[in-house]
Amino acid sequence: MLSVCQILEDIQAGRKTAAEAISQSRALIDARDGDIGAFLELADADATPGDGPLAGIAVGVKDIFDTYDMATRYGSPVFDGHRPPVDAAIVAMLRAAGASVIGKTVTTEFAFMHPAGTVNPRNRAHTPGGSSSGSAAAVAAGMVPAAIGSQTGGSVIRPAAYCGVTGYKPSFRLFPTVGMKTFSWSMDTVGLFAAKVVDAGRVASLLSGRDLEADPLREAPRIGLYRTSIWDQASPAMQNAIDSVAQSAADAGAHIVEIEEPDALSRGRDIHTIVQNFEAAMALGDEHRRHAAKLSDVLREALDDGYSTRPQSYDNGRRIARQARKAATALFNDIDVLLTPSAPDAAPVGLTSTGSSIFNRLWTLTGNPCVNVAGRVDPAGMPLGIQIVGRFGRDKLALQAARWLEETL
Amino acid sequence: MLSVCQILEDIQAGRKTAAEAISQSRALIDARDGDIGAFLELADADATPGDGPLAGIAVGVKDIFDTYDMATRYGSPVFDGHRPPVDAAIVAMLRAAGASVIGKTVTTEFAFMHPAGTVNPRNRAHTPGGSSSGSAAAVAAGMVPAAIGSQTGGSVIRPAAYCGVTGYKPSFRLFPTVGMKTFSWSMDTVGLFAAKVVDAGRVASLLSGRDLEADPLREAPRIGLYRTSIWDQASPAMQNAIDSVAQSAADAGAHIVEIEEPDALSRGRDIHTIVQNFEAAMALGDEHRRHAAKLSDVLREALDDGYSTRPQSYDNGRRIARQARKAATALFNDIDVLLTPSAPDAAPVGLTSTGSSIFNRLWTLTGNPCVNVAGRVDPAGMPLGIQIVGRFGRDKLALQAARWLEETL
Repeated sequence: MLSVCQILEDIQAGRKTAAEAISQSRALIDARDGDIGAFLELADADATPGDGPLAGIAVGVKDIFDTYDMATRYGSPVFDGHRPPVDAAIVAMLRAAGASVIGKTVTTEFAFMHPAGTVNPRNRAHTPGGSSSGSAAAVAAGMVPAAIGSQTGGSVIRPAAYCGVTGYKPSFRLFPTVGMKTFSWSMDTVGLFAAKVVDAGRVASLLSGRDLEADPLREAPRIGLYRTSIWDQASPAMQNAIDSVAQSAADAGAHIVEIEEPDALSRGRDIHTIVQNFEAAMALGDEHRRHAAKLSDVLREALDDGYSTRPQSYDNGRRIARQARKAATALFNDIDVLLTPSAPDAAPVGLTSTGSSIFNRLWTLTGNPCVNVAGRVDPAGMPLGIQIVGRFGRDKLALQAARWLEETL
Repeated sequence: MLSVCQILEDIQAGRKTAAEAISQSRALIDARDGDIGAFLELADADATPGDGPLAGIAVGVKDIFDTYDMATRYGSPVFDGHRPPVDAAIVAMLRAAGASVIGKTVTTEFAFMHPAGTVNPRNRAHTPGGSSSGSAAAVAAGMVPAAIGSQTGGSVIRPAAYCGVTGYKPSFRLFPTVGMKTFSWSMDTVGLFAAKVVDAGRVASLLSGRDLEADPLREAPRIGLYRTSIWDQASPAMQNAIDSVAQSAADAGAHIVEIEEPDALSRGRDIHTIVQNFEAAMALGDEHRRHAAKLSDVLREALDDGYSTRPQSYDNGRRIARQARKAATALFNDIDVLLTPSAPDAAPVGLTSTGSSIFNRLWTLTGNPCVNVAGRVDPAGMPLGIQIVGRFGRDKLALQAARWLEETL
């Protein structure tokens, strides 16, 4: 895979130019994407690299974000031929920081569940996960050093886990969602994909103007082993991976405590779908009203579910979400981060499903920062993702602990 | 002015058809808007009225919301000729409820401060206020019974006050902002204009599926007289109006207590601009990067201010906003609503400024529901708006108290 930090170092040291780094990604896409299907459209090849701290970094952008220079279809035939007049905020931020938005990556329909055509670069018979399928695959296949995705259920952490790359879902609203097609406004979150945790931290820092570098920790972290109340939905391979990672971390000096899931958090996980579908039904109101025939069955069912949800149920869901947020913050009184599965298992075989977000959706609802740490594999050699969850607003510590774990594994 | 409730009653009773009600608004627009300039574009005249509880209600929609069938310019030449592929969520909700989206109303540039051409129907030498200038004027001039606006500072309550109509800014996120051009995502709020408070409550109920009817109160409300820490910025006429309204309310049986502004709330008012400009700088990143020459000076200055704001100052502003929200909720322990000015004075003369949002921005930051109650006028006969502020989520009570006050005055 291509490392953001390495490329920036090479450019700084004069070993390559920003233009060469961008050309290299373009050549890799030309060579490899025919087999993967991560990209929908590439930017003009003659575009010169930008000016700024991310100059030389080619970034794939999930096609759920508006780009003025490339078609933006949100994964739906409703938007065939759509060309937004302006960039999404995160895209403008990338360009202002000097990054090259090299192409649009495949998303499932409106970043929901209906799968698209991208395959998993680790094994093409497997799904790359969704909904940020193309962004995860583009990084995993070594075509670009970074990619932008989004998560409303598990759409960053899960594909990162399935493809064996770093996925970083920041604290809610660290990055703006303006110009991103809305599915659920109280949960839609912009996220990043990169090779290693330090690479994700570097991009996040340079984009946000905040210190989010995954600097080495001075002491081993205090880790809460968080098996969750749905531990039985994790495969034996995943259960083993989590337990053995906890053991390795303890061996390396981490303080490990087992943390039972509070009721407020299991309730939060349970009402995610109510909040999501109610908001999606409003957000995609015109798509449903005028273009229902162009929507997938799975989406139409979710929207119908949203329309039949009473506002009182939604309001109650929002109250439960607020309580879950408070309970999530309280978990971190004596620990730095939680350790929990990124997904129930490795990537399923086939492209008819992008897998389950059951291990992710709670943290999207609460807005806690999450990092997928790659490194473990199942007996068949497919990646098993480990999820590090941080306290809301403590993204830097979450990234640091994730890096510590990545280097420990 | 046209009353939503009256029109719906007339249709129900068979005194007119929905189609006739829509035609009537169209004829009124044709006759009157040449002098007012509230509308930018009208919908196809042959469109049949919708089917639903709002059938027969012609609604003007601020041109900050996407409409698939009319140009959407957000008040900026950057978007000349822009035609969004789908409706904003609130527009789709209007149509789904049977309302006729009869035309797009004038907004200031990106709903910020640069004035547009609409005049005040009460006196054409005065500003109608902004940024929802056209929506307030369209209702005030009796052309439509309802209009949609938005508020990030004071853009619903202030123009309603200046034009002498009911303005209702609901609790934050009661109505979705999807498909509305973002200025500040943590404050942008969809609001309504109508003739009387009951009309606004009726539209809000039928659109949201919640009971927001401004039913008569069984007992006179408990009102907090909230002069605020910026009372000296209200004109003598406004100060007299507030004091005499409080006296009239007390005479009519209301329990009136004077409430001093807590520090947490004056601090909230002070940091509104920091939060707003930081978010606007990201939300309008591409507009600033590629189209700076097409932006007004006042907007460019606000965006430059946003770019020079450190993320730490913004984060601190968001913390102060959270504290202000808590403090705002605590105000309502022993009262139903607050009584406070809607604006410093009546509408200023001239069209070079849309007036000040100083009496509104705190409540946009905290997300409390606000209602402008019309009825009082200054010595020159221009409307002086009275603002009723309710507890977050208690919109019905705020509307009920506003109706009580409206009928008392």
